[in-house]
Amino acid sequence: MIKKSQLAWEYLENYRRQALPLLELFFHKQKEEAKKVGELPAESLDYFHNLCRRGKFIRGAFITLGYHLGGGTKKGEILLPSLAIELFHTAILIHDDIMDEDNLRRGIKTAHTYFTDYARRTKIPQPEHFGLSQAITLADTGFYLSWQLLLESSFSSSLKLKAGQELAKYISRLTYGQMLDITNETSLTTPLSGPAAAEETLKRILKIFRYKTAEYTGSLPLIIGYILAGGEEKIEALYNYGLAFGWIFQIVDDLLGIFGQQEKLGKSLGSDLVQAKKTILVYYLLENDRQDLLNQLRKLLGKKKITPTDLEKAKQLFRDSAAYTKARQLSQTYLQEGLEMIPQLSSHSADQDLLESFLYLVLEREK
Amino acid sequence: MIKKSQLAWEYLENYRRQALPLLELFFHKQKEEAKKVGELPAESLDYFHNLCRRGKFIRGAFITLGYHLGGGTKKGEILLPSLAIELFHTAILIHDDIMDEDNLRRGIKTAHTYFTDYARRTKIPQPEHFGLSQAITLADTGFYLSWQLLLESSFSSSLKLKAGQELAKYISRLTYGQMLDITNETSLTTPLSGPAAAEETLKRILKIFRYKTAEYTGSLPLIIGYILAGGEEKIEALYNYGLAFGWIFQIVDDLLGIFGQQEKLGKSLGSDLVQAKKTILVYYLLENDRQDLLNQLRKLLGKKKITPTDLEKAKQLFRDSAAYTKARQLSQTYLQEGLEMIPQLSSHSADQDLLESFLYLVLEREK
Repeated sequence: MIKKSQLAWEYLENYRRQALPLLELFFHKQKEEAKKVGELPAESLDYFHNLCRRGKFIRGAFITLGYHLGGGTKKGEILLPSLAIELFHTAILIHDDIMDEDNLRRGIKTAHTYFTDYARRTKIPQPEHFGLSQAITLADTGFYLSWQLLLESSFSSSLKLKAGQELAKYISRLTYGQMLDITNETSLTTPLSGPAAAEETLKRILKIFRYKTAEYTGSLPLIIGYILAGGEEKIEALYNYGLAFGWIFQIVDDLLGIFGQQEKLGKSLGSDLVQAKKTILVYYLLENDRQDLLNQLRKLLGKKKITPTDLEKAKQLFRDSAAYTKARQLSQTYLQEGLEMIPQLSSHSADQDLLESFLYLVLEREK
Repeated sequence: MIKKSQLAWEYLENYRRQALPLLELFFHKQKEEAKKVGELPAESLDYFHNLCRRGKFIRGAFITLGYHLGGGTKKGEILLPSLAIELFHTAILIHDDIMDEDNLRRGIKTAHTYFTDYARRTKIPQPEHFGLSQAITLADTGFYLSWQLLLESSFSSSLKLKAGQELAKYISRLTYGQMLDITNETSLTTPLSGPAAAEETLKRILKIFRYKTAEYTGSLPLIIGYILAGGEEKIEALYNYGLAFGWIFQIVDDLLGIFGQQEKLGKSLGSDLVQAKKTILVYYLLENDRQDLLNQLRKLLGKKKITPTDLEKAKQLFRDSAAYTKARQLSQTYLQEGLEMIPQLSSHSADQDLLESFLYLVLEREK
């Protein structure tokens, strides 16, 4: 039996195969520019390129998908601006990893860890502060290289401008979501239980999900691609489909953070526990209102290091409290919402199949 | 006698008076957007707005000056996009202050200090990490709000796009300069003396000055304004005038960091010593090759706190080694370079006077 996600995987693989050489060319050119300033900027771009090309490329592929749904025909030309969001994403992950104090990302060292090690190796004093500073700056580079990719592409000025306006608007909102996320992470250590608290927590979690992940991961790239194709009338439907996709993406992210496989995931398991993040799993455990489970959870949250035993305990806890099952059910709800939007997006069965397949892909993803 | 900088001060004051209400309106609108996500994002924008409006507004004013030199006539409409660079500048200063571990900026708390105190007050755990995370994110917000200002302004798509391309290119380069600056700061603790070392140091310092400050502070805003007016042929001359302006700006910055008045400056004196920054003063002291002075300097560099006595010692040191005088002389060289470019920029004597006046303004500035 062919998996429902098969079509989307193929689309993604195909996108990746075409996009990677362009990404390499772009960084090759940028490295020449950076070298005029110095060796370290050029080397830093090597790291950035390496981190970037290890991404899943879902957002970039969604730009090409949105472009296709808008009737765009320059299949070769959409690839370059579609990479703008992959560069942005890599950059924001670098800032994210600083905040989450993570050491592993996409299977390699996170940027601040990489530059801290670099400083140790080359005997630069205060290696951790150096690592932090370089990582902050490299992400800033990424933001502006991402704009170069979008603005210098071959599309008309007015289309690029419209796409750029959407990008700036959505990313500003993403940073607001990020601010809430930071506060959220650091506020679970205060006592919290009972249905009222759970209700409040769910509202906060869903808000963060919406702005930090769902809109940005699903809706934004589809809309950018659609706009670059000159499309107008389907923006709302794309927004809604993308949002459903994005919700699922984030729920699965929270699940994978505990139940995933580290090798496939490319980042450290249990990091959400270290950061005491209010994930969807934590929410459902709070909602459950069983004091014994809550107390067990509190012992795990905020630990400096999560051992394999801790991780097993956490899995058990989220299973016992039915949090795992409820999170899965929530993702199914969003699957339905996404599926319902599809007829508005295209009347071609091949497109509809692809849009459906992408919802299953994100639901089944292991990284 | 009227000071030569008088005209420029008036231009700047006039710009400020017109721009501040627009800035307020913009932030008012953005706060409404941010509130939809949460209270903290909205409050954070209040801090950002406050920090932004305390700036010198030289870069913003330079956009309007470049616009004027390009023959632009929509004097009211250039104000809004001109603020894009003020927003960007405020944002990058927030990242800068994290790297320099500064507590004071434009007379108020730096962002990471502000949010650390906020966390302490509201009992958020790990207040310093919270402060760091919020500050990184708020600057990211600033970058994208800055793009909104530029891209949503009333100019034609193709002009905005051209301006945006320049912005993205120059800012990428600025971040490369920043990377060198970070390395520079942390590498002076290794022994360094003799003419060869001094030569090498000067090259590095000037490179950092060029990319991190001179191009970005002088050339970029003039060019952006000029492009928005539809100008083309004077870009190279504007680049050179702006570069000379920017060199002076940075040299004076280094001088003020030691010899300035903290109340006027709005940031901590001696912070360059704490960070062991290779400023132009440090360079001229190195070049001097007097071991006794060098040893005295090493005792000051990298101290955790610079006392008033330390600061007096540093002043004495930079005076004795003639570093102060030489730095002043270097700024005079750039003054001449700037003055020489003026005839190429305008044939109107009023414009020429203004361009001349701006060079004196930056030379004489006390903040």
